[in-house]
Amino acid sequence: MYQLYIANKNYSSWSMRPWLVLQAFDIPFEEIMLSFPSERDTGTFKQDVLAINPNGKVPALTDDRLLLWDSLAICEYLAEQHPEQNLWPKNSQQRARARCIAAEMHSGFPHLRNACGMNIRANLNEVGRRLWQENAELREDIARIEQIWSERPEAQGFLCGAFSIADAFYAPVVTRLMSYALPVSDATQQYMQTMMQHPAMQAWVTAALQEDAWVNYLEPYQPHVL
Amino acid sequence: MYQLYIANKNYSSWSMRPWLVLQAFDIPFEEIMLSFPSERDTGTFKQDVLAINPNGKVPALTDDRLLLWDSLAICEYLAEQHPEQNLWPKNSQQRARARCIAAEMHSGFPHLRNACGMNIRANLNEVGRRLWQENAELREDIARIEQIWSERPEAQGFLCGAFSIADAFYAPVVTRLMSYALPVSDATQQYMQTMMQHPAMQAWVTAALQEDAWVNYLEPYQPHVL
Ligand SMILES: N[C@@H](CCC(=O)N[C@@H](CS)C(=O)NCC(=O)O)C(=O)O
Ligand SMILES: N[C@@H](CCC(=O)N[C@@H](CS)C(=O)NCC(=O)O)C(=O)O
Repeated sequence: MYQLYIANKNYSSWSMRPWLVLQAFDIPFEEIMLSFPSERDTGTFKQDVLAINPNGKVPALTDDRLLLWDSLAICEYLAEQHPEQNLWPKNSQQRARARCIAAEMHSGFPHLRNACGMNIRANLNEVGRRLWQENAELREDIARIEQIWSERPEAQGFLCGAFSIADAFYAPVVTRLMSYALPVSDATQQYMQTMMQHPAMQAWVTAALQEDAWVNYLEPYQPHVL
Repeated sequence: MYQLYIANKNYSSWSMRPWLVLQAFDIPFEEIMLSFPSERDTGTFKQDVLAINPNGKVPALTDDRLLLWDSLAICEYLAEQHPEQNLWPKNSQQRARARCIAAEMHSGFPHLRNACGMNIRANLNEVGRRLWQENAELREDIARIEQIWSERPEAQGFLCGAFSIADAFYAPVVTRLMSYALPVSDATQQYMQTMMQHPAMQAWVTAALQEDAWVNYLEPYQPHVL
């Protein structure tokens, strides 16, 4: 059975992606949660991750003795192992588009990533309002994301038809747009709704809301209220 | 026939990757070079790219009317279109490793990227010496790269056996290590040699050295000598 190593569901956007894929496609796996430390460079998180993965990051997937350590490579591997499930779209042209979209997220959107860290349980509406005014590069990242999402084949549907790896890659953007209440178009909100109704997404978000670990270095915008 | 849009061979590390893959595997393609402007936000580069690719970046590949716009997605597409060529390793476990390695490069190593932009023709040995002393995060990025390279199956060989997409992804690191003369192990230098002897690599580097365009915003370390 696959073992997927992840960090806190409230905060770990990279963990979320392969987890959603496994969950959405009903692929059995064991989840192993390594909680981020409360302060940077404290606790055993780093050594726990390094014990299984030399690059020191999550997510990591093991399949028997094989280790995979990057979210996109994990998803490609799963797509290969479960060809009948169409983790990527079946149609070759849609699959090419899905890969471009996922890859663009994988290496891009640094301003969104830096300014708006994932924090599912937080209400950061005020922060979002301020960032939106001050941060032109953040607005550009969001504009490009809205453009990508606007090209989905059906208004009520997923990015490339049925739910695929491409949607999993944008899932943390959906939760960020909500936490920071960034002003987006109706069409974008429609996609966010479609995503929030997906059972895998609901399972992750529900679990994130039940966590109570406070990771101080991932909370730049909120005072730590004990 | 494929059309691959790239920027200057001296500077464009992202363009280099799919170009090397096409070249190394003898896949026919037409190369279309859009030269970076001499000063940021001048000239027609951005509008020329936007005319074919809405995300405004190179590389981009067209296959008839299909557009692909990310280096990794382009390589995955080529691997699918030419299955008999083994652009990824044939062995499933080696292929998984190759994808992890390529994906780690695709989204990682920001310190190397920022401090040591690709500049094939430049001698930046002095700069490299200074950066190496001052920039601990750069040293960490290089240490991780040396670790990955050290795990190749044969000392004289490529990262995952025969030349594959994984090697193409690290090709711009090879040229950077040379331009900035960063101090690396003998094993690392052995891999650099293996790469520099590959005909596709030689073809790119030779063409880069023949370019004379000076792109000022990609030359933070050198005065512009006319
Ligand atoms: N590009 C990697 C990114 C992985 C990553 O940055 N993971 C974060 C957690 S979301 C991490 O492990 N950070 C811990 C650290 O860097 O010490 C992927 O796609 O898997
Ligand atoms: N993650 C992208 C990166 C592409 C990229 O950043 N390309 C640079 C050239 S090496 C570019 O087009 N820059 C022009 C710009 O951003 O205006 C990929 O893998 O293709």
